[in-house]
Amino acid sequence: MSFQFEVQSTSDSARAAVFHTPHGPVETPAFMPVGTLATVKTLDPEDLVRMGATMILGNAYHLHLRPGDDVVKEMGGLHRFMCWDGPILTDSGGFQVFSLAKLRTLNEDGVEFQSHIDGSKRFFTPELVMQIERNLGADVIMQFDHVIPGQSDEASARDASERSIRWLARCLAEVNRLELGPPVPHLKLMRAEPDKTVVTPKYVPTRTGEFAAQLQQQALFPIVQGGIHPHIRRQAAASIASMHDWPGFGIGGLSVGEDKPAMYEMLDVVDEALPRTHPRYLMGVGFPEDLIEGVLRGVDLFDCVAPTRMGRNGAAFTHDGRLNIKRAEFRTDPRPLDESCQCATCSRFTRAYIRHLFIADEMLGLRLLSLHNVHFLLSLMRSARQAIQTGTIEEWAREWLLRFRASPPIEV
Amino acid sequence: MSFQFEVQSTSDSARAAVFHTPHGPVETPAFMPVGTLATVKTLDPEDLVRMGATMILGNAYHLHLRPGDDVVKEMGGLHRFMCWDGPILTDSGGFQVFSLAKLRTLNEDGVEFQSHIDGSKRFFTPELVMQIERNLGADVIMQFDHVIPGQSDEASARDASERSIRWLARCLAEVNRLELGPPVPHLKLMRAEPDKTVVTPKYVPTRTGEFAAQLQQQALFPIVQGGIHPHIRRQAAASIASMHDWPGFGIGGLSVGEDKPAMYEMLDVVDEALPRTHPRYLMGVGFPEDLIEGVLRGVDLFDCVAPTRMGRNGAAFTHDGRLNIKRAEFRTDPRPLDESCQCATCSRFTRAYIRHLFIADEMLGLRLLSLHNVHFLLSLMRSARQAIQTGTIEEWAREWLLRFRASPPIEV
Repeated sequence: MSFQFEVQSTSDSARAAVFHTPHGPVETPAFMPVGTLATVKTLDPEDLVRMGATMILGNAYHLHLRPGDDVVKEMGGLHRFMCWDGPILTDSGGFQVFSLAKLRTLNEDGVEFQSHIDGSKRFFTPELVMQIERNLGADVIMQFDHVIPGQSDEASARDASERSIRWLARCLAEVNRLELGPPVPHLKLMRAEPDKTVVTPKYVPTRTGEFAAQLQQQALFPIVQGGIHPHIRRQAAASIASMHDWPGFGIGGLSVGEDKPAMYEMLDVVDEALPRTHPRYLMGVGFPEDLIEGVLRGVDLFDCVAPTRMGRNGAAFTHDGRLNIKRAEFRTDPRPLDESCQCATCSRFTRAYIRHLFIADEMLGLRLLSLHNVHFLLSLMRSARQAIQTGTIEEWAREWLLRFRASPPIEV
Repeated sequence: MSFQFEVQSTSDSARAAVFHTPHGPVETPAFMPVGTLATVKTLDPEDLVRMGATMILGNAYHLHLRPGDDVVKEMGGLHRFMCWDGPILTDSGGFQVFSLAKLRTLNEDGVEFQSHIDGSKRFFTPELVMQIERNLGADVIMQFDHVIPGQSDEASARDASERSIRWLARCLAEVNRLELGPPVPHLKLMRAEPDKTVVTPKYVPTRTGEFAAQLQQQALFPIVQGGIHPHIRRQAAASIASMHDWPGFGIGGLSVGEDKPAMYEMLDVVDEALPRTHPRYLMGVGFPEDLIEGVLRGVDLFDCVAPTRMGRNGAAFTHDGRLNIKRAEFRTDPRPLDESCQCATCSRFTRAYIRHLFIADEMLGLRLLSLHNVHFLLSLMRSARQAIQTGTIEEWAREWLLRFRASPPIEV
């Protein structure tokens, strides 16, 4: 098996481990920068290598719409397409279908929706999404799930969680069929009512030629849903864990509007309910304080667009909280963004210069701040890992959070 | 003297040389990437180093408005501000005052104009511009000149050329005063009528502290104007050359609307009229064919925003002409932009990927194309230099232009 999870040290729930993938090892806890459209916004893959990123994300929903997962497949898969030969995880698009797309209609089969790009009608099923993720060729692929708002009531949370588990079984069957069965055209899976506006992509799932030679085994991760309802989360974790020997687990539906204590409580619940032998990936969570709270609750992998989105908006993480570089007070500030940061931005440029770039709408500013913010989270997780290994994670986390939280968060 | 021009080989008018500056040598012929606002748009200084850029540009007009040359000075000068420790040349802003600014009023003293950023009234004199360029602290500073449209009639061209020469004398006097004389507040130089909307920047020309220790000798380059009128160009060159032992010469007012044969004729005229012992800098010219035609006519330095502006618009230079990456034909094109290019873009990414980035409005696309285009011109000038040194410049230029011109230029 290409995927292994090697736990090296633990401290209560926190653990330092190595997640082995076909494209190399990922030392955890780790933050995974998000390359939604096959690019981590404003950054070059080389920037990511140099700042020590190991695993990055792509997004099935976005890449299906642009450039098309068929194009990515034809160009040799996502790794080759975006020139990233480290591990990649693709999100299934569940979150995007329920947050970005318009006019959704959900039934047990799947979800019909309109593309947020051109309004064309699409129909996502668990099977189609597995085909899309196979075309993209990431190391880890996430199941297609039914995502609901963070504050949903128990009935809605239970309904979505149970549907997600039924869809998980279909995802697994489809992955097995794609890996083991004979190549079968899957257009029959497009179950939307015949309609001229429904786009029927020409999938060619036959594994031949150069791409086939490259296609690695893919690890399907289930996603534990259940809103902020502990017993639904517990049931979901138990049902999922008993279904199959999964290579890892996603934890979804958090950091979507619920308050922080509720999120941390759910992490405690899931930490207890999931096997400790496998990696846990907390989806869409990327603020420094949440990463640390997650690590303390047994989370291994994180992702979020926050560091690049904030970077493009002029906000920088620092050890003393967030900083908005556009403020007039930085006009002639000769200091780096964060005086203890070793990133390519902080080791060279002043706040005054970066502020100038933002005021003058120069793209280098967006890149320098994105670089810094991504480096900040990667470095934070390296520090956490080291603290776990040296048995000091509790104190380290307490001190880090005390300093960080002493400064009020800024609006960006 | 910190500035020396060492001619190594010649072939008719073309020459391979080294222009020594306080921040290092520039092997010529050379293309200088333009960092208008203290950044070569979309690129990191490190990108420029890696592609072999030696000397880059900044712009006095733009930097005076944002962030203010006083800010740049306070931050240690342009080299330190933008983290570029190679040679820098600043353009005087003459071109921008006459092309970007609104509501200009010119008299013998200088030009009153409204900022294109906030509409505030400003008054540029040759003296003020020298103070701005001194604050910026570039190695080479251009005189403030009176720029006119490319097709201007003889009377206008003569008037502007003669005024530019009178302003040159004032620039030289001011540079000498700033370098040698006692520090004097220069606010008396703000000669616009008293008006509350006139911004009076608080210059502090005293040379003390850290900045003073860094301030290198600056080379003032005059600019030969004269439109497309050979005898005015000749007179300008003669007047300028007899005024002072300049470290080099700018050739201005070309590639501004006149046709190509007229531009090449003016280059022939100026080539004859200027001393062959000093560098010649053809301002604002940056298309591959014009660089080659310029080299054949004794030009050593070029600059232009074309490679980065085109790059942001989706156009790439190739040895077979220009290519518009957004075209549908590149959707699954696995080739690099230019198959014989060694740049960081072409050595990694396909046309299909870069097209995807443009279609999806991803900033990495702008950067990858800008990288390629700037590399293309730097590499072109390195090839020209080598061809001069091996005595093959004529054939090399003929073959290069034949292939490049065989493809029709595309509109971008």
